Amino acid sequence: MTAETILRDKLATCTRIFAMQQMLGLFGHISAYDPETGRVYMSPGQGADKSTLGPDDILVADLTGRVLDGDQRLPIEWPIHTALHEARGDALAVAHLHAPFATLFGIAKREFRPVTLQGSLFSDGLPLYREPRLVKTVEQGANLAKLVGDKRGAFMRGHGITVIGHDIEEMLYATLILEDEARKSVAAASLGELDTLSPEECAAFDAEVAFSMRSARAWGYYCRLEQRWDRQPGSGVTPFT
Amino acid sequence: MTAETILRDKLATCTRIFAMQQMLGLFGHISAYDPETGRVYMSPGQGADKSTLGPDDILVADLTGRVLDGDQRLPIEWPIHTALHEARGDALAVAHLHAPFATLFGIAKREFRPVTLQGSLFSDGLPLYREPRLVKTVEQGANLAKLVGDKRGAFMRGHGITVIGHDIEEMLYATLILEDEARKSVAAASLGELDTLSPEECAAFDAEVAFSMRSARAWGYYCRLEQRWDRQPGSGVTPFT
Amino acid sequence: MTAETILRDKLATCTRIFAMQQMLGLFGHISAYDPETGRVYMSPGQGADKSTLGPDDILVADLTGRVLDGDQRLPIEWPIHTALHEARGDALAVAHLHAPFATLFGIAKREFRPVTLQGSLFSDGLPLYREPRLVKTVEQGANLAKLVGDKRGAFMRGHGITVIGHDIEEMLYATLILEDEARKSVAAASLGELDTLSPEECAAFDAEVAFSMRSARAWGYYCRLEQRWDRQPGSGVTPFT
Amino acid sequence: MTAETILRDKLATCTRIFAMQQMLGLFGHISAYDPETGRVYMSPGQGADKSTLGPDDILVADLTGRVLDGDQRLPIEWPIHTALHEARGDALAVAHLHAPFATLFGIAKREFRPVTLQGSLFSDGLPLYREPRLVKTVEQGANLAKLVGDKRGAFMRGHGITVIGHDIEEMLYATLILEDEARKSVAAASLGELDTLSPEECAAFDAEVAFSMRSARAWGYYCRLEQRWDRQPGSGVTPFT
Repeated sequence: MTAETILRDKLATCTRIFAMQQMLGLFGHISAYDPETGRVYMSPGQGADKSTLGPDDILVADLTGRVLDGDQRLPIEWPIHTALHEARGDALAVAHLHAPFATLFGIAKREFRPVTLQGSLFSDGLPLYREPRLVKTVEQGANLAKLVGDKRGAFMRGHGITVIGHDIEEMLYATLILEDEARKSVAAASLGELDTLSPEECAAFDAEVAFSMRSARAWGYYCRLEQRWDRQPGSGVTPFT
Repeated sequence: MTAETILRDKLATCTRIFAMQQMLGLFGHISAYDPETGRVYMSPGQGADKSTLGPDDILVADLTGRVLDGDQRLPIEWPIHTALHEARGDALAVAHLHAPFATLFGIAKREFRPVTLQGSLFSDGLPLYREPRLVKTVEQGANLAKLVGDKRGAFMRGHGITVIGHDIEEMLYATLILEDEARKSVAAASLGELDTLSPEECAAFDAEVAFSMRSARAWGYYCRLEQRWDRQPGSGVTPFT
Repeated sequence: MTAETILRDKLATCTRIFAMQQMLGLFGHISAYDPETGRVYMSPGQGADKSTLGPDDILVADLTGRVLDGDQRLPIEWPIHTALHEARGDALAVAHLHAPFATLFGIAKREFRPVTLQGSLFSDGLPLYREPRLVKTVEQGANLAKLVGDKRGAFMRGHGITVIGHDIEEMLYATLILEDEARKSVAAASLGELDTLSPEECAAFDAEVAFSMRSARAWGYYCRLEQRWDRQPGSGVTPFT
Repeated sequence: MTAETILRDKLATCTRIFAMQQMLGLFGHISAYDPETGRVYMSPGQGADKSTLGPDDILVADLTGRVLDGDQRLPIEWPIHTALHEARGDALAVAHLHAPFATLFGIAKREFRPVTLQGSLFSDGLPLYREPRLVKTVEQGANLAKLVGDKRGAFMRGHGITVIGHDIEEMLYATLILEDEARKSVAAASLGELDTLSPEECAAFDAEVAFSMRSARAWGYYCRLEQRWDRQPGSGVTPFT
């Protein structure tokens, strides 16, 4: 298999997994960048049924947003992806989602802090992109990338989240973790003050098992679930347990 | 296809989509008005299984609530629909639903404010119809229409919501947005104070992409989901992501 | 059909509807009383799979708890049913459930008040049976019945609910309403103080449409849903919309 | 059937039931100990699809964590299981799960207290294992076992729960109860202060029906549900009602 075949296949699978998890549907798109060829692979935007997406439905563009194959339209917020692929050599995969729970940290006035071991990944926090606008221009994309800096992504006010990964597997797993942190934070906040993890505690946990190893295992697990998913609307979402 | 064929088909589809989203079931009904013929098309009321509704199940009446085809009974609250179709030339489609989350703004003492970009649509807010009664008479319908004024609908105390649209597509999408605003507001409120969008921010977002374009895309998306829905009780609801 | 055939069939159907709504499963049982024959019909207790229950699985006893047909065991809390059937001529149907939300009013220190039009039915409130014990004896049953008095049932501390009806249809609908009141109260409380309905407002609504008419319509609706339910564990629950 | 056949079969079934209940998936594992042979049976760790697990997928080790059959890898946190099996003669079954709700008592600063009759089982409370690290070494396992002492398990900060039982049936039922206590506590806390059960009230309830009898009935019930589960991702979870 060529790199393109692999990236198309993985990106379509990852899209379907996010759809199964009800984190991507009407909105949201994900991308992967191949620095060797300068090609950006991207899932389609509004209108497409993400649950049944195949490798051939993946769009290809360059870092300027020029579509390379056919005449399909990129998602309107493509600059989120190209800006981050360009700015960060370690952001070979990018997710922009309106995830039901992680998005709430762009709605409530509350700073995110990790509440579980896996959440240690986000010990440095995520900046809040305050501008309540779509990221439609190269300049807006660059501003977002600048705000992200060396973090793992950003919350976007009244909008959603953007999460990066070294590869598609890490992007998937990091995003699932962030959603779970948010979901657990919402529920636990009903019980009382949150006993968040300190930066030292996060660092100690993260040193235990490499994130790439953990994300590879999670990838295999979710791929198995997705293969036997019936793709019924509203079915599929599995708690992060 | 005649206008009637199209409206019957769209209204039945929209009813099934709301049923899939678990926003319409035992209660709730939607309507569309054809100003050329003065005919009001309406989904049936209590008792009907909305998940399997077809074009032939749609009822037809005039603006006075007189049933035009056959001897079927209109929903008891038909004056909601006729009053709004009559009062507003731009209310060619009307939904009255007991939606699980949007209804909560008719229960909790809290004013609605948009919390997401899509919610900008409701920047002007929605009035609260305080009377805890069914809207069963022409007079009650007129009072509701007067309260709605030039807004996009109303919360109804201890009852539900009424939402209008220029066409069925806009009515569906506006209602899905309102439900999502409410759902996210409930969850985010557990985390802290809500960072709602200002009128200026809402106006800026709404100027970016025409609502009619967004609602057309959403219509296509939900139609696709509905076509492959298994219609199992309790299945189908897809978060607005 | 004899009265027995009808009651067995309706009680089994009602059991399956409650199972579909995820309000009855490992726990919970419902009953109907035939004053003509003095026979009490009851769904089986722990261990039975309520989703697939048929008329032949219904148990029969007299008001003293003596099993009349075969050697099956009554649910351990049968005195809830016999006591209420005996004490109240208008309690021909009784549900004892550990419903997910209504039970919370036996856990949180908060008095129940109706928050929706349908909830007007419970305008008089429900007493709280404070004793955190099973109702296993005739004396305990009598105490519960005395506490219920002329109300529509009781919350049971740390335990569940008991709801009565004139017939199975009213018992089903009243219980579905109570569960929905509780569910909406929990969610709305996250938004702010609840704007509950006053006794006068409740009385005005209840005078509009007879409860027996509303419960008959709801019965037909839920029977239709139940007939096409796939009986998958965890599937089926339909919000009260 | 030999003891090994029975334990393998029950442990695989229990794993699938937890998967159905969405309490075990990517994370989590359970074990049973046979004191006659010194063999520890354990469900596999990350990567395995727990919904379809069979008796042959169960791993076998001794109390030192040495795998006895084949070359499969134990879950990384196997010392949780061996330490508790060793320390407690009455801990013949152990569950370590990242259950969605019970885990929240390891996140929010709030002490657990029973809120329902079944929760009386946990009247003595559960200690909080504060160390936000995986339990990967024999020493860490011993520390956890020491903390558990004579209690029924422990909450684990930012991590999950560990619950013990005299046998697999009790371990399953106790864990389902704990999850339900947590779920109801979260929801009820939105309504007001929790009216928890006092130690005396818990003791009185627990004396009524032997836990072993209750857990045997629950086992039969959940086995029946699991047998007809379609194993779709995200389907299956049945509220504890």
